[in-house]
Amino acid sequence: MSSSELESLVERVVARVQEQARYQAVPPLPELRGTWQDQSALRALMDAGATRLGTDGTSPAQPGGLAGYIDHTLLAPTATRADIVKVCEEARRHSFASVCVNSTWIGLVARMLEGSRVMPICVVGFPLGAMATPAKAAETRQAIADGAHEIDMVIDIGALKGGDHDRVFDDIRAVVEAAQGRPVKVILETSMLTRDEKIVGCAISKAAGAAFVKTSTGFGGGGATAEDIALMRAVVGPDMGVKASGGVRTAQDAQKLIAAGATRLGASASVAIVTGGSGKGSY
Amino acid sequence: MSSSELESLVERVVARVQEQARYQAVPPLPELRGTWQDQSALRALMDAGATRLGTDGTSPAQPGGLAGYIDHTLLAPTATRADIVKVCEEARRHSFASVCVNSTWIGLVARMLEGSRVMPICVVGFPLGAMATPAKAAETRQAIADGAHEIDMVIDIGALKGGDHDRVFDDIRAVVEAAQGRPVKVILETSMLTRDEKIVGCAISKAAGAAFVKTSTGFGGGGATAEDIALMRAVVGPDMGVKASGGVRTAQDAQKLIAAGATRLGASASVAIVTGGSGKGSY
Repeated sequence: MSSSELESLVERVVARVQEQARYQAVPPLPELRGTWQDQSALRALMDAGATRLGTDGTSPAQPGGLAGYIDHTLLAPTATRADIVKVCEEARRHSFASVCVNSTWIGLVARMLEGSRVMPICVVGFPLGAMATPAKAAETRQAIADGAHEIDMVIDIGALKGGDHDRVFDDIRAVVEAAQGRPVKVILETSMLTRDEKIVGCAISKAAGAAFVKTSTGFGGGGATAEDIALMRAVVGPDMGVKASGGVRTAQDAQKLIAAGATRLGASASVAIVTGGSGKGSY
Repeated sequence: MSSSELESLVERVVARVQEQARYQAVPPLPELRGTWQDQSALRALMDAGATRLGTDGTSPAQPGGLAGYIDHTLLAPTATRADIVKVCEEARRHSFASVCVNSTWIGLVARMLEGSRVMPICVVGFPLGAMATPAKAAETRQAIADGAHEIDMVIDIGALKGGDHDRVFDDIRAVVEAAQGRPVKVILETSMLTRDEKIVGCAISKAAGAAFVKTSTGFGGGGATAEDIALMRAVVGPDMGVKASGGVRTAQDAQKLIAAGATRLGASASVAIVTGGSGKGSY
């Protein structure tokens, strides 16, 4: 997509948002799926997704301050049971939004967080996003059965880059259905995508029923930037979640990303963030 | 485990091998599972696994030379359909042992390789190994249904490091059962393990019915070394496969690893290896 095409798209999105405000109409999913093989249909989809452009620099405040934004995250493959237990205790102490782990640990985390307001949440198809769709759905069903309240899945990056948008949609849709009403976040792995791929990834995520779009796995060589968050917020509109993850290490990082439009932050340095320190590591 | 304990273990393994040669007896799985919670039982398991110590520097030759050893591998999350098709064409042209991909691509690869002797093979729980066991089993079943001839799973690294050996065993066993007789390789991710963890990982893999142990994912910051291959070969004995992967870029690398005891090589630089060049990248 050229920059003039993108500008034209932006104009059309603004027009569409004004139209939607009048009619409160959103294209139903069956009409969307399968129609984006031609470029004009894809743009219509993106129009439908992009209900707000830009960000006004404010976000709804979370109760409990910064901690309420944070998914306290431990995804290192070397994490042991003792490490997972520690993260759960930290999350209860600081009232983080959730504890985010790999699916092998979600049952333990759900038990550890029982009786608290901290949600047990879990990644799926992580971190490559290249797992077969039925396997992502199965991992999701298992995670929900084990107590996951939210699912952070990785988009099919190769399909997105190859322009196979039906495949990207079907993959997300299968996970959304397997999640049985629990919110699904779609990790785009922004460091591997062009600007257009980020836009399309957001639009398809929204069309497929995801609750959030999310920047990074922390394993892909890049992290959240305010610029990406603003772009993602612009495409998905005000009613969908945007999660910034990867390289969020200080309260300043966190505030900047929230100002750009993030409504959730993924971090392993969560305790440092809420106590005024600075964390290490790529997540 | 201290080095004197390891030496004592080595002596006991030699005695056990001599005993086994007399009785042809291998402890059945139900007796092994659950018994390694105490150290003496764990050692008995390792004795049962370690049917050969050291390597004599020779390996059975593969028909077709070096190419017959190579799993031609493309696991980058950004790989598109066109990239996968290219890898399949290269594998047919050079008669590699297999094409190894993420599970989202295994159906396509199986179709592309139909009528050739090149096997379609697929990774599971990749690359972190931290997916819930039922999800790994589901990914395996799907991959077999889609045409995978072999499964390369990642061991539960955190459970291994935490000493939760039952969990490691059950995880591998579930994938072996889901593979319905197709060979399963267990990726240890050697760069993240101590020497003792490598030994235990090999012994449990063998006890759980895996066909191969394998060094690396290529995503874990390290690759195959001749030292690790020799150690793994020593623990699993002569009848199990050992796959060297990660950083195998030249024919010299390949020959060195085969001399150390490898019977399969995972590489993305496969064409360079068989045509005398040198590849790039971490796999």
